[in-house]
Amino acid sequence: MTRHDQYNENVAGRANVEDTPELLAYYDDLKKKGAAALWTVANKIEPWEPRSQSVPMIWRYKDLREDVLRSVDLVTPEKAGRRVIYLDNPGRSDVAAAVGWIYAGLQVMHPGERASAHRHSASAIRFIMEGTGAYTVVDGHKMTLGANDFVLTPNGTWHEHAVASDGSPCIWQDGLDIPLVNALEANFYEVHPDLAQAVTHPVDDMTRTWGNAGLRPGTGAWSKGYSPMFKYEWAPTYEALSGLAETDGSPYDGILMHYMNPVTSGHVMGTLGASMQMLRPGERTRAHRHTGSFLYQVCKGSGHSVINGRRFDWTERDIFCVPSWAWHEHANASATEDACLFCLNDLPVMEKLGLYREEAFGDNGGHQPVHKP
Amino acid sequence: MTRHDQYNENVAGRANVEDTPELLAYYDDLKKKGAAALWTVANKIEPWEPRSQSVPMIWRYKDLREDVLRSVDLVTPEKAGRRVIYLDNPGRSDVAAAVGWIYAGLQVMHPGERASAHRHSASAIRFIMEGTGAYTVVDGHKMTLGANDFVLTPNGTWHEHAVASDGSPCIWQDGLDIPLVNALEANFYEVHPDLAQAVTHPVDDMTRTWGNAGLRPGTGAWSKGYSPMFKYEWAPTYEALSGLAETDGSPYDGILMHYMNPVTSGHVMGTLGASMQMLRPGERTRAHRHTGSFLYQVCKGSGHSVINGRRFDWTERDIFCVPSWAWHEHANASATEDACLFCLNDLPVMEKLGLYREEAFGDNGGHQPVHKP
Amino acid sequence: MTRHDQYNENVAGRANVEDTPELLAYYDDLKKKGAAALWTVANKIEPWEPRSQSVPMIWRYKDLREDVLRSVDLVTPEKAGRRVIYLDNPGRSDVAAAVGWIYAGLQVMHPGERASAHRHSASAIRFIMEGTGAYTVVDGHKMTLGANDFVLTPNGTWHEHAVASDGSPCIWQDGLDIPLVNALEANFYEVHPDLAQAVTHPVDDMTRTWGNAGLRPGTGAWSKGYSPMFKYEWAPTYEALSGLAETDGSPYDGILMHYMNPVTSGHVMGTLGASMQMLRPGERTRAHRHTGSFLYQVCKGSGHSVINGRRFDWTERDIFCVPSWAWHEHANASATEDACLFCLNDLPVMEKLGLYREEAFGDNGGHQPVHKP
Amino acid sequence: MTRHDQYNENVAGRANVEDTPELLAYYDDLKKKGAAALWTVANKIEPWEPRSQSVPMIWRYKDLREDVLRSVDLVTPEKAGRRVIYLDNPGRSDVAAAVGWIYAGLQVMHPGERASAHRHSASAIRFIMEGTGAYTVVDGHKMTLGANDFVLTPNGTWHEHAVASDGSPCIWQDGLDIPLVNALEANFYEVHPDLAQAVTHPVDDMTRTWGNAGLRPGTGAWSKGYSPMFKYEWAPTYEALSGLAETDGSPYDGILMHYMNPVTSGHVMGTLGASMQMLRPGERTRAHRHTGSFLYQVCKGSGHSVINGRRFDWTERDIFCVPSWAWHEHANASATEDACLFCLNDLPVMEKLGLYREEAFGDNGGHQPVHKP
Repeated sequence: MTRHDQYNENVAGRANVEDTPELLAYYDDLKKKGAAALWTVANKIEPWEPRSQSVPMIWRYKDLREDVLRSVDLVTPEKAGRRVIYLDNPGRSDVAAAVGWIYAGLQVMHPGERASAHRHSASAIRFIMEGTGAYTVVDGHKMTLGANDFVLTPNGTWHEHAVASDGSPCIWQDGLDIPLVNALEANFYEVHPDLAQAVTHPVDDMTRTWGNAGLRPGTGAWSKGYSPMFKYEWAPTYEALSGLAETDGSPYDGILMHYMNPVTSGHVMGTLGASMQMLRPGERTRAHRHTGSFLYQVCKGSGHSVINGRRFDWTERDIFCVPSWAWHEHANASATEDACLFCLNDLPVMEKLGLYREEAFGDNGGHQPVHKP
Repeated sequence: MTRHDQYNENVAGRANVEDTPELLAYYDDLKKKGAAALWTVANKIEPWEPRSQSVPMIWRYKDLREDVLRSVDLVTPEKAGRRVIYLDNPGRSDVAAAVGWIYAGLQVMHPGERASAHRHSASAIRFIMEGTGAYTVVDGHKMTLGANDFVLTPNGTWHEHAVASDGSPCIWQDGLDIPLVNALEANFYEVHPDLAQAVTHPVDDMTRTWGNAGLRPGTGAWSKGYSPMFKYEWAPTYEALSGLAETDGSPYDGILMHYMNPVTSGHVMGTLGASMQMLRPGERTRAHRHTGSFLYQVCKGSGHSVINGRRFDWTERDIFCVPSWAWHEHANASATEDACLFCLNDLPVMEKLGLYREEAFGDNGGHQPVHKP
Repeated sequence: MTRHDQYNENVAGRANVEDTPELLAYYDDLKKKGAAALWTVANKIEPWEPRSQSVPMIWRYKDLREDVLRSVDLVTPEKAGRRVIYLDNPGRSDVAAAVGWIYAGLQVMHPGERASAHRHSASAIRFIMEGTGAYTVVDGHKMTLGANDFVLTPNGTWHEHAVASDGSPCIWQDGLDIPLVNALEANFYEVHPDLAQAVTHPVDDMTRTWGNAGLRPGTGAWSKGYSPMFKYEWAPTYEALSGLAETDGSPYDGILMHYMNPVTSGHVMGTLGASMQMLRPGERTRAHRHTGSFLYQVCKGSGHSVINGRRFDWTERDIFCVPSWAWHEHANASATEDACLFCLNDLPVMEKLGLYREEAFGDNGGHQPVHKP
Repeated sequence: MTRHDQYNENVAGRANVEDTPELLAYYDDLKKKGAAALWTVANKIEPWEPRSQSVPMIWRYKDLREDVLRSVDLVTPEKAGRRVIYLDNPGRSDVAAAVGWIYAGLQVMHPGERASAHRHSASAIRFIMEGTGAYTVVDGHKMTLGANDFVLTPNGTWHEHAVASDGSPCIWQDGLDIPLVNALEANFYEVHPDLAQAVTHPVDDMTRTWGNAGLRPGTGAWSKGYSPMFKYEWAPTYEALSGLAETDGSPYDGILMHYMNPVTSGHVMGTLGASMQMLRPGERTRAHRHTGSFLYQVCKGSGHSVINGRRFDWTERDIFCVPSWAWHEHANASATEDACLFCLNDLPVMEKLGLYREEAFGDNGGHQPVHKP
């Protein structure tokens, strides 16, 4: 017989009702009517603080790269739809998420290949890890992409990825809110009627139009829920971070900049945010925690992060996650070179729904004790 | 051995890769590395359109009322925390939701009883179904409540419910976004240090201050993410609906008004919206469907709704749900009296995240064929 | 010969250049080139604080009413356009303003009369002072009006005023931003091609739709720069003020509410704001001053205001003005009855342009010394 | 005897009342009571369309430069406050404006000179015309400035201008909304207690922090009514315009970009906007007109503009104005070089107050007939 008092807590204001035969009969009766007694689950569904189902973990590029490349021989893009190896957090396998409600995968494409065009309610980014010649078409706008650049394919936009025939094999990280949009039961999917779209604007026109600091085009307006600057490049981002290297920055994040929608200065898309941060030579940040799910990719350098008391060493192209409300801190391993971390997150969701909260780690100079493995 | 090709679709642009021994070995290898092949789940996680896990259903008050009253004898408020029978949608039992990510329960309280004060990241409403003398205290503001009134206890506010000692036994419907806030791993819970709060403002002051059409108080400002008009009363709502009864209204909803935050004219809280609608004598609406989850309570009259082809007859105090993307239409059974439906929903979430979509039912004069039971 | 050093100030950081023959020749030379030396006017155009050109004054209804009524015999509405006596502040005669950039006039209309329909870039209100049967049509919406009600005829809307044939002679106060819009060189004027518009909506529909506290219509949206609640009535306004009579209110204004656009909770129109305030029995407020121009009309009771040290006694229907940055305080003459003041102002302009500033009068318990007349 | 019927128009809906002895006596009587008859001025204060008081004109740099330099010998900065020759539009001499409500002056400063620090409610820009070593300090932030750069000194900020001792004599154009803020009776002025402020941040930090396309700093927020990017430089602006040279641009303005507040993408300050536009080799725009006042400075190249039918030829550093509702079109004189025009305007005021309107010139292929001089 199922127990119904396993969540009891002996604390004033919390449920603490022991099962009795009479109550168990009552519970059975309620069940038949599509109902149940709150006090049997209240302490479970009203936890004192968030306990993420996601496991803090790292995916090392040296482990996965060969598998990703091997997929080229195993499946065709036509059969696979997209040739992607996705990051499958053990705590989130049921929803195919890397962390929280964020999906991520590594996709490989050879020169001359082009995925079929489609659109969906999920929002996506594509962050280039290696290779040349990658490009993406979004609603008729073509963007060329190099390493550490990323492109938006927002909610509802037709999009397709490709590699130019004079390029080299490309690997990139896809990041989407598919799990969230599924959970919210709002995902729609369409294959483009022609399986491909025409490029109807000059190459990189959206970045040329909207990617000028302090300048807004005199013609054209933009009121969609995502950034019109579809592509964000590495070179000016790194230059911007370097230009701030001598400022204090954040004790928890070093020098961090959020990629933004230039029209609103808000996040790049309605459900996904992104940032790039620099850990200066020798920099070790202090620990804090906050709500929201965070997926990091190492763009430059090496170092380690401590997440809920476990140490994860990382180097270029590794990917690791910080689940909601997990303590975390970062350290650059080099005393002479900076390290850079790209981060994909669901901060727009947390902020819009009024659920963002953060807290600093006070003890021990701001550093977590590290568990022995 | 687990199959990995059960989601295959033979459609251009969709995954369609058959299992082979080589691939199965590959999948095993990926699994060890915390990874998996997207094409094995792509068609599952990218559905053509939303398929809600919630079951359309109705909870009839005549079935539940006795059970609710009986809880008074079975458990004390001290032991139970709150004495609530919650609505347990069979498709959402794992998260204790009535529909989608919305929790709802029926709570009973006797004159002179007072629940302990607490606060949480979840947002809540309390909609009075029967009884007199109910009141709620929110951050020191006391609101008195009668039938069909409701009160907000927003995200982060200290709150407690009670019934005055000269009142009668009260039953109300609680509605919360607990399942959503848990899913987003952002729920915090605190019991008030004194288990009760002082009333520090004149009774009903927030409605007197903010509940005046077209008038804003000269002193005081409000920038919180929820309405300062904590209580919404039935009488002026019914009067407003009646005043519009001769306008066209909506073909899908009759005369519908959204309860709003008077400062922004947006929804009453950051994650939950509410509306009241009137079906005029003899009115039968046409079917449409949209994203978002909706929980109705019948405040006045009787009639029926058709949800995804099933007919649900309802009368006063019954509660029924419309899951995301389910076709639905309503009909008033009376040719002489109007019928009124209160509705709690997650429209703020859908709208803020850019996920709201709707569609009219085109065939058959806008009316669904009804399945035989 | 014109002096150019009359604004000199002997203060560090201020211009203090004495005329010399050489300089005067230089100034002459500049003048020919459409130029001049800043230091000759700097102290004039950069005053230490605002000095309003408007004179604080009162227009007593007992003095003006007969003149207003007499206009009926003197001119026809056809010849006059509108039969209005306007308030001509001696400091603002050049722009026909009552105070600052606000125009105001008293208009009279007999039963059965109807002014021709027109529209302009200026925004207007019409505040009823006496009579029955007045109504206004705004973009096809007809509003009926009684004493102390007011109606908006915003920037760009077709509008016309009339009195029903079964009404009585009506007098109302017009208030417009004509002087401002002229000064900004942005005023356009059109006579309606038919000289009258059809009423195309149910009477008072905009107030029935948008004038419900805490309720937003489910159909219809509103994004124009002015309130969709075209009419604001006296009865609910007075009731709202009375409901707050026991709160502290403002030390400078008693119980004051701003009329608001229910969609934004901002001011009723883009350039004009309005408020109603109650001075409780025996209430005497403290003095303060702020930028912006304010035109009061006494709706109920009697009392006095002290403006820049001059006392102005007022009774029902009197109109008085408070110029920008003028000290002012109010007192109710009655120990048993409340007094109510309607106020038309340009706060939207001050606030949008970042020019609002206020200051309390600190000395003498917050009360100005009153000059002997 | 003053006539009161000089504005009569014989048009239905307009005032058309002839003076009679009885009416003149009536007008006299009203005047004594601080009132007047609207119909005597209605047609004047409600014009059919705006008629600007400003005269379209050009200030040629070759005419003014010597005078500006000469001021160095004529007055000291200490005596003059600021050594500025201002542009005195003959139609706006009473308010010391160059056009509409915009003040502009040419200021000269020698190496090692530093103006005293002050602040005021007026907002200002400083646009560098020639010289090296210019810098400005705004609320403790120091900005270095070269030709065609400009800096903001917004409403309420402490600011001071200077030229480094190793620089060269500098001339720049000041642009302020002093006339507007005076007209709105909201101008306050303060001299800094020390006559100079300390530089409390790294040089150019605000541009380094906020002047990165598509990037928002992770620390620090900004909610003031003006741009945190205090300095806008010529080089990236010209690069941005060049990058769009092959797009269509605007038929009226060629390639035009508005300088923007990166936080809101709105105008740089609350009352003043600025733009830079490129006329491509051989480009001749079509005529249009709009409300608002516009002051142009030629940054590069030569050409001409036709304003209300008059042709104004311009070359580098010339300044010309386009009054409200004046027809205007521009032409680049060169078939091989582009020409660039900086423009200071009051668009924020027009837009916020709902007064912006524009109209294309339809006849003659969009080009005005040019009057013989």
